[in-house]
This record gives sequence, structure tokens and C-alpha cells, in this order.
Amino acid sequence: MSIKFGPEYVRAIAPYQGGKPIAEVAREFGLDEAKIIKLASNENPLGMPESAKVAMQKAVADIGRYPDANGFDLKAAITAKYDVPSEWITLGNGSNDILELATHAFVQAGQAAMYAEYSFVVYALATQAVGARAIVVKAKDYGHDLDAMAAAITDDTKLIFIANPNNPTGSFIPAAELEAFLARVPPQIVVVLDEAYNEYLPPELQYESISWVRKYPNLLVSRTMSKAYGLAGLRIGFGIAQPVITDLLNRIRQPFNVNSLAQAAAVAALNDTAFLQRSAQLNRDGYRQLTQTFDELGLEYVPSFGNFVMVKVGADEAAGARVNLALLKQGIIVRPVANYGLPQWLRVTIGLPDENAAFIDALKKLLS
Amino acid sequence: MSIKFGPEYVRAIAPYQGGKPIAEVAREFGLDEAKIIKLASNENPLGMPESAKVAMQKAVADIGRYPDANGFDLKAAITAKYDVPSEWITLGNGSNDILELATHAFVQAGQAAMYAEYSFVVYALATQAVGARAIVVKAKDYGHDLDAMAAAITDDTKLIFIANPNNPTGSFIPAAELEAFLARVPPQIVVVLDEAYNEYLPPELQYESISWVRKYPNLLVSRTMSKAYGLAGLRIGFGIAQPVITDLLNRIRQPFNVNSLAQAAAVAALNDTAFLQRSAQLNRDGYRQLTQTFDELGLEYVPSFGNFVMVKVGADEAAGARVNLALLKQGIIVRPVANYGLPQWLRVTIGLPDENAAFIDALKKLLS
Repeated sequence: MSIKFGPEYVRAIAPYQGGKPIAEVAREFGLDEAKIIKLASNENPLGMPESAKVAMQKAVADIGRYPDANGFDLKAAITAKYDVPSEWITLGNGSNDILELATHAFVQAGQAAMYAEYSFVVYALATQAVGARAIVVKAKDYGHDLDAMAAAITDDTKLIFIANPNNPTGSFIPAAELEAFLARVPPQIVVVLDEAYNEYLPPELQYESISWVRKYPNLLVSRTMSKAYGLAGLRIGFGIAQPVITDLLNRIRQPFNVNSLAQAAAVAALNDTAFLQRSAQLNRDGYRQLTQTFDELGLEYVPSFGNFVMVKVGADEAAGARVNLALLKQGIIVRPVANYGLPQWLRVTIGLPDENAAFIDALKKLLS
Repeated sequence: MSIKFGPEYVRAIAPYQGGKPIAEVAREFGLDEAKIIKLASNENPLGMPESAKVAMQKAVADIGRYPDANGFDLKAAITAKYDVPSEWITLGNGSNDILELATHAFVQAGQAAMYAEYSFVVYALATQAVGARAIVVKAKDYGHDLDAMAAAITDDTKLIFIANPNNPTGSFIPAAELEAFLARVPPQIVVVLDEAYNEYLPPELQYESISWVRKYPNLLVSRTMSKAYGLAGLRIGFGIAQPVITDLLNRIRQPFNVNSLAQAAAVAALNDTAFLQRSAQLNRDGYRQLTQTFDELGLEYVPSFGNFVMVKVGADEAAGARVNLALLKQGIIVRPVANYGLPQWLRVTIGLPDENAAFIDALKKLLS
């Protein structure tokens, strides 16, 4: 009999399935990489901002050195932008790192973490990796049911994940509802408010979650620079919370978790509001382009507040997989969401106008 | 009364103290960054290899995309270099990531992990972060006492860390002794063999740890590219083990833990044997340069097999801190090791000839 290492709850984890990389699809389907369109990982179709590229190049000379473990310059930029002390900031290797740090810091094996059905899969993976129990609260209109979540809190609930906007559905919780929920959560439970897609919100829906951090010592706001900031390949995200939270995250954080180039690029990108505005505008236009087609085709979709749309491509349980495979064969990569319990749906990242058009053409042919 | 979040064992962790960054020393002591000499973090004084820089630049165009979560190209390069299947490889955000993944995968709260006194501090931090008990085995001649370690194994020991060469002392376990130890460890205990400094070993001391991986399903060999390969700022390391280990590490690994530029640079650096040889030669010369001075000054030092030397700078308990501060004021950064229980010693990274000379001059004046 062969030996099994590690606890059962680790052996039971199904590894994360990301969007297929372009090179992998090219290999699998015998396609030309240059002709492949990837709308699978909610990346910014504009790539990284030029300002960040310039800043990053200056940091290349020091690659032989370890990164600044305390992220002095980047924390200063975050401090300036969000008006919080640097002691309130935790830097992460992407916001995925922040989500995992929070789970490791606040939840032990046997205790519980809560998140919504159809909410970002990393919440489930992180919960399972520490051997904790998941309280998965049924979604309402493909989004968070905050009343049901408040009602589902147990004595051993230590952490609640809220994604706003939510991935993969795109749903959004208005600020007033969200703050009312925060006020209801018992103060000993940490709430992780994952705002990975915050920068895509129109001005009238923006809200000041940092002001809630001042009010609620149990709130951790998580941000990524992989989406609107265009830095997915570099890995950089950050958390903002009061020191009672941040202290612990920094104790268990790998000291050199954020590489030097990510730190340098992030400083520049944070201040590049012109790039953010261009990205948001491109996204709004692309959203119209995609959803007009879905309307024409009579396809159901979830109104999205992120840089992606989840669309129902068929009534049968194999619809998502079938359409996904047919698209892959044509070199168009989108994201199946059957692993979220949504096998009839696909999540499509909003790309450049011609990328959206190519997807639309292919989809129309497939469904006609 | 204010609320305390997280388990007591997390709150008790003392955060990692890295080598002080050059910019931080410049700020603290009012010095010119360009004149500061950093011999504190066992970095390669040659910086990154030119081959890696070229490879990295090609990857910059894709920074807007997520990294390849499966590291196809880098695993292919490791496969080719070490003749192991890609299923045996785990990529890490530095080898620190591999060390932590192993702890999270194989040790639960209340169980035990073992390491040697005066051994890399991350073993202690990772053990504490999962709430496990540390079995710290007394050192012999500032290195591992493998007989004592074998004798100290308990029923609940799940993981043993061995650093070879060891940091911060520089000690080395010859291959035959190490394999004899592996043969004695019960097969249900995972052994992490941390070979961060392997590339600095002279040819006559090199050994084939990968062949041990074939023989021992409980062995995980960890390598970093932060030292001899000169890529500390990019964060890249890897683990090699049989799938029974690797599978679990990959289940709990953050899917995009290794950034795109690190992956691209690492492929090139792995194959740059000329750079490795130049780095090793520079290190041998610098070791002679430093240790000749220590001999002249009658200073005790631990014979080192890494790219650093640990030297005793005084007989009193404040000697390390005192000399360290005096060096800092002159813009020379080395590493105090009082946190390892070695307050009379300093660890000095072997630098460029003129950097070593500047340190020697300063030390001579301080001690005369």
C-alpha cells in the first residue's frame, strides 16, 4: 500500500482551472498563436500601461537584489491615493495572495468560512486548503443574498468573503446594502471585501469602501492590479485594513512575496488615471457591443459590472462545454463556468472591438 | 476590550527580518544610495545574467496577460536539465514558496516539524504559521547533527527540513551522510532538502540529489534561482519530488504564483552555465579574500560552502549588533544573526572584490 501524505482535506482539493493560455490552445488545436483571441481571464485588452512599462524598466538593473520586503515606495503610492497609513496596507502576489493570507490568518481547521454560491472559486479553494468548513449561501439573481448570508452566520464563522462586483457573474451590491450588511456582521468575524473589478464601476456606483475600513476593524478590502491596471503577468494586489488585521497578514506573508518589477510598475500604474479611464471607456463600449448581440440573439445574460459578461449559450447541461470547444477550435478562448455549477453558461471577457466582433461572429454561426 | 483576530499561534509569530534594503539604509542613515555596499542577503553580486535579461524583455509584451499557471516552458527547461518528468516539478514564488507549501500541505496544527538549530529561519516561521510544534535539534559544529535529528523523530513528526549547504552558518553535509539519513527517516515523513546554495559547491562535493528523489517518495528537493542564478528580485524557485508530493503542492499552490517575467528569465538562466561558472569562481575568490583577513585578524568563522561567511566579531553578547551598526553608518550592510541565537556573529555575503575589500577595511578599523 502506498503512503498518502498530508491531511485528507488537502488531498481532496481540485486544483484551480484558469483560462487556457494562448500557447496551450495553440499546441492543443494546432493553431497559430498570433491568430488566437483570448477572452478568458478578465485581463485588460490594452495590456500594461506605458507608464508602468517605463517604471519597470528602471527596476530591471536591480533584479539580482531581493525586492523590498516592506514595499516602501508602493505603500507610499497607495497611502497617497487612498489616504490610509502605510500600516494599514498588505501587499500581495496578486490579490489571490491577500485572499489566502486572510484565510490562513483567520480560519483554523474545523472552523467555518462563508461565501456566496457562484462567487470566486479561490474562496472555496482557500477554505478547503486550511481544512475549514465552507458555508455556501445560495445566490439571488446570480449575486450575493446578503440577508441570507447574515442569517447563515454560525458561532464558528471566522471569515466572510464578498466579491463586489462578483466574478464570474458580474453582479453588483449597491453601497448602502453592503454597508448595512457590514453593520450586521458580528465584530469578531473578518469580512474580506474583494473589489477586484472596482475600477470598472461607473462613477455613479463608486463608493468609498476605505471609509468603511476606518469604521469597521473587521473589514479587509482587497484590490488587484491584474484587471483594470493591466498588470496580471506581474502579480500585484493589496489589502487595506486596520492594523489589528494587517499585522497578522504581514506576519504570515512570505517576506518577498511581491517581486521588484511588480512593485515598480504598480507605483506608476496607480497614478495613471488616464489609462484607467481609457480602460473603463473601452470596457463600457465593449459591453454594449456584446450585450446588443446577446439581445438580438435572445440569449440570456447577467447584467455585468465587471469587464466580462456571463451568457447562457444553451438550455442543456452540455451547452457551455459544447460551445466552448467549438470556439476553441476557431482559436477563441472564453471561460466555461460549469465548475461553478453553471454548465449552460460561458463567461466572456470584454476585449478590443475586433476581438469582441470575432467572438460575436463565431457565436452567431455556432448558434444559428 | 479590543477584539483579537486569528489563532494565538499566528499572533505569536515574529515577522521575518530580511537584509536591510539599500534604499532603507540610505534613508535611515542619510547616505548616498550609490555608495552603499550590501552584503546582507546572499545575492549574486553580478546581478542577473544577460541571457535572462534578454529573455525577460521578450515577455514584457504580454504583461497584461496572466502568467502560465502550469509553467510549461520553465518546466520543460527543468525537465531537460535534471531529467525528471514535468509532473515532478512544483514552481514557486522563490523557494520560500516551496518551503511554505510543503508545510501547509504536510503539517497540521498540533503535529510537529523538525529542523536544526542555526538553520534557515523560514522553517521556524512556516512551522509556527500552521500552529505546528517545532522540534529544534541542537547543532553540531554550527551544522546539522543528523544522528540527533534521527533520534528526535516523534510519532507526530510530519516534516523535516534540511538545508545543505546551511544558511546562515554555511555548513555542509557530505552526500554519503545525507543519504544515510534519508534511509533512516520513516517513509511517511516528508523530508525537504533545501539546496538554495547548491550551485556554489565545488565539483568534488556536488551530489545527485535528484537520484535520491527517484529512490525516496518522501523527499522534496528545493532549489532557488535567487542566489547563484541572480534572479532574487523576480522570485523564482522550484521543488522536485515524486507526484505523490508534487500533486499536493500543486493543489494548494496559488495558481499564478510565479510571474511571467520570472518564468521567462528562469528558462534562460537555467541554461546559462557560463554565468553559473563565473559566479562560482567569483565566489571562491571572494571567500579566500574574506577568510584570509579573518585569519589575519584571528577572527573565528565557520567554514562556508555557500556565498557567505559567518564570522564572530566579538566575545560579548552585543558584539554583532555593535559592529553591524558601525558598519551601517559607513554604508556597509551585512546581516546580524542574533535572531538565530548567535549575537556575537555576523553573516557576510561574498561580494565583488572591491565590495569585499571595503568591508574588510571597515572591519579592520572597527576591531583595531
